[in-house]
Amino acid sequence: MDTSARIGVCAARGFRAAVAEAGLKVGRPDVAMVVSDVPAQAAGMFTTNLVCGAPVTISRRHIKSGTARAIVVNAGNANTCTGEQGERDAIVMCAAVADGIGCDPHEVLVASTGVIGRPLPVDSVTRAIVSAVARLSHENGEAAARAIMTTDTVQKVSVRTLEVNGATVTVGGMAKGSGMIAPKLATMLAFITTDAEIPSYALQVLLRDAVNQTFNRVTVDGDTSTSDMVVVLANGAAKAGPLVPGSADYKAFANALHEVCSDLARAIAEDGEGATKFVTVHITGAPSVDDAEKAARTVAESPLCKTAIFGGDPNWGRIAAALGRSGVTFNPNRLRIWVDDLLLFENGTPASFELKDAEKRFAEKAITIRADLGAGRAEAEMYTCDFSHEYISINADYTT
Amino acid sequence: MDTSARIGVCAARGFRAAVAEAGLKVGRPDVAMVVSDVPAQAAGMFTTNLVCGAPVTISRRHIKSGTARAIVVNAGNANTCTGEQGERDAIVMCAAVADGIGCDPHEVLVASTGVIGRPLPVDSVTRAIVSAVARLSHENGEAAARAIMTTDTVQKVSVRTLEVNGATVTVGGMAKGSGMIAPKLATMLAFITTDAEIPSYALQVLLRDAVNQTFNRVTVDGDTSTSDMVVVLANGAAKAGPLVPGSADYKAFANALHEVCSDLARAIAEDGEGATKFVTVHITGAPSVDDAEKAARTVAESPLCKTAIFGGDPNWGRIAAALGRSGVTFNPNRLRIWVDDLLLFENGTPASFELKDAEKRFAEKAITIRADLGAGRAEAEMYTCDFSHEYISINADYTT
Repeated sequence: MDTSARIGVCAARGFRAAVAEAGLKVGRPDVAMVVSDVPAQAAGMFTTNLVCGAPVTISRRHIKSGTARAIVVNAGNANTCTGEQGERDAIVMCAAVADGIGCDPHEVLVASTGVIGRPLPVDSVTRAIVSAVARLSHENGEAAARAIMTTDTVQKVSVRTLEVNGATVTVGGMAKGSGMIAPKLATMLAFITTDAEIPSYALQVLLRDAVNQTFNRVTVDGDTSTSDMVVVLANGAAKAGPLVPGSADYKAFANALHEVCSDLARAIAEDGEGATKFVTVHITGAPSVDDAEKAARTVAESPLCKTAIFGGDPNWGRIAAALGRSGVTFNPNRLRIWVDDLLLFENGTPASFELKDAEKRFAEKAITIRADLGAGRAEAEMYTCDFSHEYISINADYTT
Repeated sequence: MDTSARIGVCAARGFRAAVAEAGLKVGRPDVAMVVSDVPAQAAGMFTTNLVCGAPVTISRRHIKSGTARAIVVNAGNANTCTGEQGERDAIVMCAAVADGIGCDPHEVLVASTGVIGRPLPVDSVTRAIVSAVARLSHENGEAAARAIMTTDTVQKVSVRTLEVNGATVTVGGMAKGSGMIAPKLATMLAFITTDAEIPSYALQVLLRDAVNQTFNRVTVDGDTSTSDMVVVLANGAAKAGPLVPGSADYKAFANALHEVCSDLARAIAEDGEGATKFVTVHITGAPSVDDAEKAARTVAESPLCKTAIFGGDPNWGRIAAALGRSGVTFNPNRLRIWVDDLLLFENGTPASFELKDAEKRFAEKAITIRADLGAGRAEAEMYTCDFSHEYISINADYTT
């Protein structure tokens, strides 16, 4: 079987996808579904926001069994702050998929993304689901990734393969996310499929580790979404046999899952609302990993740092100021700050660098801000983007 | 004596001010000083940022005696991240003032605001100080408030008077601040003078209470400055006799100090970088005042809420989302959200309001976001502004 043309959630064997228009987004598909040919082991992580969408509540309930057949997603309406009617609408979406593919509604996971606080036009969404079921195909991986977009400007997909017992195992995924991005122990929408054979409890452990190192290290605007969700389905269709915890194959699979999550997480930061630059903030010399992450997050979410980076302005003083207010304890005289390989600050004073050299690095499309706090051996990275005029335009009139 | 023409720090008796050009800001005065005719009781609060400016270090040291004769301030250079040379330069500024007015350098407080990480051109600043000393006058309250501005668009002054033992006591102040505003247990630059007679330890207690309720409730961008400082000098020149703790006069004075701080704090939020709207976030029904402040701060610093307010978009879902991620525990089904007097959200679903009515309120120049968390009886207010295109423009090329 040639799977080279298969993209995202359709890359792994035994998964099909379809899209349809429910009229939530004008003139383009806004409903996507992913279906496993057989019940798949399922693991998921969900938003930690107390105000969470009805689909989050329902999917949390449905994934408890550890198996799932399908995922249905709509863009354009988050079905959040919609009360009991919202939960009923989310269940109706699951039931429509279950009817179409012949499974129990509890085997369907549901996700919604878009405006908060508007009733879901559930009849249109149900009609779209019915029409999508009839068009399920291995070829729709890219179409599905496009259908779940909101302010995203590019679809986000990733695929990794590995050999297990002579068989090719594939891990593929898609994600959406551009604004309201600051996942904390949860994430934006991401859906990953694999034809590996692995029980849901092991999958959940691997997913949690991967998410903590990837999606949870991305921030666009510090605003944790109400609808964050990352789900992985494993249907065993590669016929590679069970992955044994501790084996080299298991580690290779964990690595592939990590890389797919990492690809999708970076793609979200690169496509941050209005983003013109991809920014990595790498903190070393911290007392603990939590401190390193806190320091990195403070820089990555600082409006003053993000606007300076947009302007290509090597205003490293703002980085020092952000680190100083981060709540992490360190001695400013031991602090060192670099952009890429260029040292900007040490011993409490500016390093001797040429302004032109700094400006050149701040003008790049991808830059790395590095800081050593001189207060320990822990480190962490965060991924973010700059704050541009376009960010303001996108968010100044989102609902009206 | 007619003091009606006296403004800001020159409103209270026995205080004079002067300004001069040191060339840090092109074509306008950028150095200001305030001098008390006699040693004044002094109280101050300073930034909690670990990375703090040399003037903060020196002023913290000088204010320990509890008295001061003068304050000198420059705009255009923060003298921060400038190492030991920065501290020497700050001391030189104090010495120049002390030489000019005839006092000890330890009786002079110093503040600097502007770009971080550039050596202070201390010779130009010293020459400006010498020329300013020769022009000290009761008439320079407004000129001083203008000289300390950076990205501020208006000078910020406030005056209150009260009667104590038949004498008129005056409390006047000036402040600067527009960006890098998120004071935490400290504040932006603010200087207050009074001719009341009150010892520094009592003044410090009153100042701390006032600052916690005013400057510490303002946020523009969540970025706590390295140079925050609020100082009050009391020289007793009103000849009203000592203020006795617990007396009605004492309370009236505390109230006047609070009102001057409140005026200056609100003026800073109204003049936030690029601000088009003044926003009050008022949280009620919180488990504790700390929780109420945390919830209010999360909304006030949310880029998504601030851009929606800029666009006049009644996107209350973002307010609910910000509250949900704030870290405060509450039941979303008991959450209620208003804009001004218009209920937008309750019982987990949108309230029945007309979109036009919401849009009208979001279009006002000053709006109040109110939310009741339904989780207790504590409340708090934060003051902020919106995030506009102009904010991005101002901060994209600040240093270069």
